[in-house]
Amino acid sequence: MTDTPEDLLRELRSHERFLLTSHANPDGDAIGSAVGLARILRSLGKGVVIWNRDPTPRVYLSLPGSDRIHHGEEAPASFPDGFDALVALECPTLDRTGLHEQLQNGLPILNIDHHLGNEQYGKVNWVDTSAPSLGEMIHRLARALNVTVDEATATSLYLTLVTDTGNFRFANATSRAFEAAAELVKDGAQPQEVARWLYESQPESAVRLLGEALQTLVVDADGRIATLLLTQEMTQRAGARPGDSEGLIDVPRSIAGVKAVAVVRELGPGKCKVSLRSRGDLDIEKIARAHGGGGHRNAAGFAFDGECEAVRQEVVRQLTEILGS
Amino acid sequence: MTDTPEDLLRELRSHERFLLTSHANPDGDAIGSAVGLARILRSLGKGVVIWNRDPTPRVYLSLPGSDRIHHGEEAPASFPDGFDALVALECPTLDRTGLHEQLQNGLPILNIDHHLGNEQYGKVNWVDTSAPSLGEMIHRLARALNVTVDEATATSLYLTLVTDTGNFRFANATSRAFEAAAELVKDGAQPQEVARWLYESQPESAVRLLGEALQTLVVDADGRIATLLLTQEMTQRAGARPGDSEGLIDVPRSIAGVKAVAVVRELGPGKCKVSLRSRGDLDIEKIARAHGGGGHRNAAGFAFDGECEAVRQEVVRQLTEILGS
Repeated sequence: MTDTPEDLLRELRSHERFLLTSHANPDGDAIGSAVGLARILRSLGKGVVIWNRDPTPRVYLSLPGSDRIHHGEEAPASFPDGFDALVALECPTLDRTGLHEQLQNGLPILNIDHHLGNEQYGKVNWVDTSAPSLGEMIHRLARALNVTVDEATATSLYLTLVTDTGNFRFANATSRAFEAAAELVKDGAQPQEVARWLYESQPESAVRLLGEALQTLVVDADGRIATLLLTQEMTQRAGARPGDSEGLIDVPRSIAGVKAVAVVRELGPGKCKVSLRSRGDLDIEKIARAHGGGGHRNAAGFAFDGECEAVRQEVVRQLTEILGS
Repeated sequence: MTDTPEDLLRELRSHERFLLTSHANPDGDAIGSAVGLARILRSLGKGVVIWNRDPTPRVYLSLPGSDRIHHGEEAPASFPDGFDALVALECPTLDRTGLHEQLQNGLPILNIDHHLGNEQYGKVNWVDTSAPSLGEMIHRLARALNVTVDEATATSLYLTLVTDTGNFRFANATSRAFEAAAELVKDGAQPQEVARWLYESQPESAVRLLGEALQTLVVDADGRIATLLLTQEMTQRAGARPGDSEGLIDVPRSIAGVKAVAVVRELGPGKCKVSLRSRGDLDIEKIARAHGGGGHRNAAGFAFDGECEAVRQEVVRQLTEILGS
């Protein structure tokens, strides 16, 4: 566990007006960390504006304070003259903000991250790759700054733990993650409420879309590969909206014995997008890369021309190949 | 937080051969607590046998040691002469074991529970209704007995926290639950592995059954009631086995705005079973009770004669009535 660096604390104490930003397509850790840090700095009397390129996903809008996040490629009115420092949250490189060009203006940059390969682009850089979420680092920062963590701040930071650890199911559900959760719950975070936002607030259309997609479930390679299709017709029938297919891939992934999962989504006539997931050592990113896509070892995606069913068969063939016998 | 009572510790230290039992239809807390306590007592050189009336559900068989649990209405060979004391885990009354008559034999009973309304039927009774799981009490017991919690014991007790708090999503996901989880993970519990047993080991047929059931989703009463049907034809088409419909009711319950959920399962021609769930204050147990069934305020069930679709309509009518306008 790395201590909060003194130079970061000094920068935070000495400036008065902060611009906070995080990565494009912000996730729960990006949103919760920004809202939490904003509340912490405001409790010290500082001025804070959060600016992300992309809007806050619907699922996080229940978090108090998330409605105050400025988003878009246009800067907030007071930028840049109204600020003394820029805090970049969860960005291994500054261009992950998607606002790289707009942010080039000489403001000192405070870089706080927990990703491998952070490029240390800030005036101050605090990177702790063993942190379960960036919010857990912000929690430590609050203690180092001697700030009382109120209920709303605790909830923001608790949200980051839940989303980044997959609700305490991933390898980063460490004892440190649970210790931070214990303290945040003591400070007023409500696990039941956060769970309701994240897991019990699905649009009806998303549940209908899941029902449609499960009709196309095929399990191949002796139970090791599960695939689903998502055609435009199914999307229409379910009345589905953008975002409704998120998380859908986890359902075939939950089948015992399945090592690799693909969802083939029809984007238009003869155009598909393939999402892949794998378990353990199985590297499906190389399949995605070979098709001009990318991702990580266990989660990747790529575009592929063809009819859905033909694309599925080709993807199953390639997955079978890397699975071996 | 209640301390482990001295008289319980004294009983555990002074006897050598323990019979552990828990309630009929054991859940994760019953199984994990028994396996964990057995390991703790064995590490003190004691002899321990676990005897439950019902078999361990498939989903918990990945837990090391769960295969050693004796089950059935027939006593283990060495019973009762081979034992000095009986430990009843998670049983508000002794008949919850389903082995009440068999266990009436004069052995001193050590009653460890976290339920409201425990009837204090033991020679020693340790009931802590604020404990997030019984396993969390067993964890405190281990510390009071000065036993080193090894990896397998930690995993057993961690399992009880995950199952009883709904993977840290229910109101009993307290700071104490998270503190215990932090310690158990330090002692070697693997959250990722437990999550794989519980959430990523579904039979393919269960996922297919979900797909079938979602085709029948109806949302009524301005989005406040969601219902599903499960006919025998659907069960056959999915190749479903007993237990495959477990957890299925949580999917319609995850829809935003839904206050009450019903799943109508066809048991035979003109015979149905209705499972109800509700959120918050909405008491659906009174509907179940009026039909000769039972349960709790937010989870209840009953049998109902009629064709599935007709039963659904009647249930929706009754739910609409208690929802008001």
